Amino acid sequence: MLLVMKFGGTSVADIARIRNSALHVKREVEAGNRVAVVVSAMAGHTNQLVGWCKEAHELYDLREYDAVVSSGEQVTAGLMAIILQSIGVKARSWQGWQIPLVTDGSHSVARIDRVETADLLASVEGGEVAVVAGFQGIAPSGRITTLGRGGSDTSAVALAAALKAERCDIYTDVDGVYTTDPRLVPEARRLPRISYEEMLEMASLGAKVLQTRSVELAMAQGVRVQVRSSFDNPETCEPARSGISEMCGTLVCDETEMLEHHVVSGIAYAKDEAKVTVLSIEDKPGVAASIFVPLSEANINVDMIVQNISEDGRKTDLTFTVAAAELPRALQVLRDNQDTIRYRDLRGDTDMVKVSVIGVGMRSHAGVAAEMFQALAGKGINIQAISTSEIKISVLIGAAHTEEAVNTLHSLFGLDRT
Amino acid sequence: MLLVMKFGGTSVADIARIRNSALHVKREVEAGNRVAVVVSAMAGHTNQLVGWCKEAHELYDLREYDAVVSSGEQVTAGLMAIILQSIGVKARSWQGWQIPLVTDGSHSVARIDRVETADLLASVEGGEVAVVAGFQGIAPSGRITTLGRGGSDTSAVALAAALKAERCDIYTDVDGVYTTDPRLVPEARRLPRISYEEMLEMASLGAKVLQTRSVELAMAQGVRVQVRSSFDNPETCEPARSGISEMCGTLVCDETEMLEHHVVSGIAYAKDEAKVTVLSIEDKPGVAASIFVPLSEANINVDMIVQNISEDGRKTDLTFTVAAAELPRALQVLRDNQDTIRYRDLRGDTDMVKVSVIGVGMRSHAGVAAEMFQALAGKGINIQAISTSEIKISVLIGAAHTEEAVNTLHSLFGLDRT
Repeated sequence: MLLVMKFGGTSVADIARIRNSALHVKREVEAGNRVAVVVSAMAGHTNQLVGWCKEAHELYDLREYDAVVSSGEQVTAGLMAIILQSIGVKARSWQGWQIPLVTDGSHSVARIDRVETADLLASVEGGEVAVVAGFQGIAPSGRITTLGRGGSDTSAVALAAALKAERCDIYTDVDGVYTTDPRLVPEARRLPRISYEEMLEMASLGAKVLQTRSVELAMAQGVRVQVRSSFDNPETCEPARSGISEMCGTLVCDETEMLEHHVVSGIAYAKDEAKVTVLSIEDKPGVAASIFVPLSEANINVDMIVQNISEDGRKTDLTFTVAAAELPRALQVLRDNQDTIRYRDLRGDTDMVKVSVIGVGMRSHAGVAAEMFQALAGKGINIQAISTSEIKISVLIGAAHTEEAVNTLHSLFGLDRT
Repeated sequence: MLLVMKFGGTSVADIARIRNSALHVKREVEAGNRVAVVVSAMAGHTNQLVGWCKEAHELYDLREYDAVVSSGEQVTAGLMAIILQSIGVKARSWQGWQIPLVTDGSHSVARIDRVETADLLASVEGGEVAVVAGFQGIAPSGRITTLGRGGSDTSAVALAAALKAERCDIYTDVDGVYTTDPRLVPEARRLPRISYEEMLEMASLGAKVLQTRSVELAMAQGVRVQVRSSFDNPETCEPARSGISEMCGTLVCDETEMLEHHVVSGIAYAKDEAKVTVLSIEDKPGVAASIFVPLSEANINVDMIVQNISEDGRKTDLTFTVAAAELPRALQVLRDNQDTIRYRDLRGDTDMVKVSVIGVGMRSHAGVAAEMFQALAGKGINIQAISTSEIKISVLIGAAHTEEAVNTLHSLFGLDRT
């Protein structure tokens, strides 16, 4: 089968780590699989390059930034090819412009337009491992682009889609996606499979295993993604076989491929949330816009929004959350617009956490929210805001309750049972 | 005028150094010159990249090595462009493949075939500084090549030739070419001009200011090269003007452009030479070949060769020099070939130095050699071997005499007088 294998920064952090990752590739090649490899920069290398750009000029040219930072993946791709050759695996490196992987001209946050696969595929079909520098492409102008932070995941999924690969294995420093954070809940279990939709909720809610954008792309293109650890012993892992998901890692796939249907698949949490309460504003059309338009113009991302029920039909309170780091700026924006918003008072609370219950099974199961609120109330945990989607329920609570809340919900929905 | 400015590793060692080098560029742009800049990697960066390749595999693939090490110049080119922009100078970076600077396919030691100047020239004529990553090109296969150590000098000269630049300024950490090493001879003077031929002898004899290959190319293409220091104050230097050589630095140019004709222009010395003497071999055709063919097959570079006069027409001694580090291998090769060479004995002496007197004026002035030998004899310095070319005389002496010999010759030929 044709397989894309992607190795992140910690999996190529030094020559010894690249060598270990190369042994995972060798295993697949020896099992008869055709392989394209995508590599990130060595851990820390990108930060150094970004640091130099910032030191050079605060307002650096994004085209030059792309030329500088893309060099990190160029280095790893060459080193990975050398090491593969040293262990008897035919390999060559490919820069984004050599493939070419064509993007739009949005330097530093480029979107992939197309991947020309003719040369790459000829190489792979000829029995050579194609080692592709992740995170980078070429703009129609002929200049190097990068895909934004974590873009190598996106490179790998795009390449898998273009090559019609049977699977895209994302090797990282954890061995899969868990029902929740194992540092918080010792009973957390690795999920053998998770649907794209659930993974999207998990990714954007603080489980930093996969970049959100790469999951969106995988879902849109129907690319099966296996999250697994490069720290596993390369020799004892099973090589990839057509249609079979290994016992290691987590397969991110279409809902129809799910083996078991839990109502709830996982509990995610996001720290460093802040709550803003705007007190006693007029309950009339346009008042919400008077708050959120200036915030959006100031590039402040607003997450949960709760409009309280108006007691007398004339005055109401409005609550929303922002990242804790943005709180001072958010409050300043509101003060600057007091003339148009006309609130009585303003409150900002930090040390909040957003805890979310996620599962595609919630689509067909009522009562999950009720169970969740009851369980938290039973522990004396006050819910300050609620937001929901088709497959998740999020609550905002005080950060001090994080561990207790996550543990309570994890066992409430049976995630600690195999 | 159109000017190429090249900055070496120590001139772009960190952001502060790049900023200082950028001020030299700004000065030229503000004086109305059109400028292409060539940059090396930050000092030490290339060594780190080469080290990784070696750690990856002793016998690394040279195509991958080129992809890895060329990233150093890519980074500096981007940073230089950012910094130029930050001080109000329009600039953009160019990778070798973007120009393209087309080389042959000899990875890691590629020769430049041609420089496509259309895009580059359009940019420069449009008032933008072109910041070119030195040391790198693209092979007809579409893969990145590098030009070998010090290749950025060659990039700069090739670019100057292709762009028909009026001059190629090589900014380095010394302020020009000196009559001899100022650390050895305090009276050493900077040469305002030196001919290509003399520079070639100086370069290959240990004055490490310019890479030999770049001087050959400059001579072949008639590119005027100015060697100067990036550590000079960028604001007090005179900007380049057509047909005028600055008071700072050394102009490397055609002999016909020389302002003054000294018989001797400089004294060079090369340390770490070793002398090999092969005693009592047959004085007949083929015996030299029996010695030098196996040495050449073992990739040992032989420099000076002296065949002593045979006393009886039957037996003779032969003396030659190699780099001190190669001495053990050279002796081993000779021992392995004792059967065919049939010498009586073998001697190896280290701690030798080669001192050379260089000057195009020697072509028309007899007696330089005699004066040189006499002066050294007067100091009791024993000459162990001699070699000459049209414009230089080299002698091999004990390393302990280096300083005395160089000082004696420097004043003998009037190099300490302005």
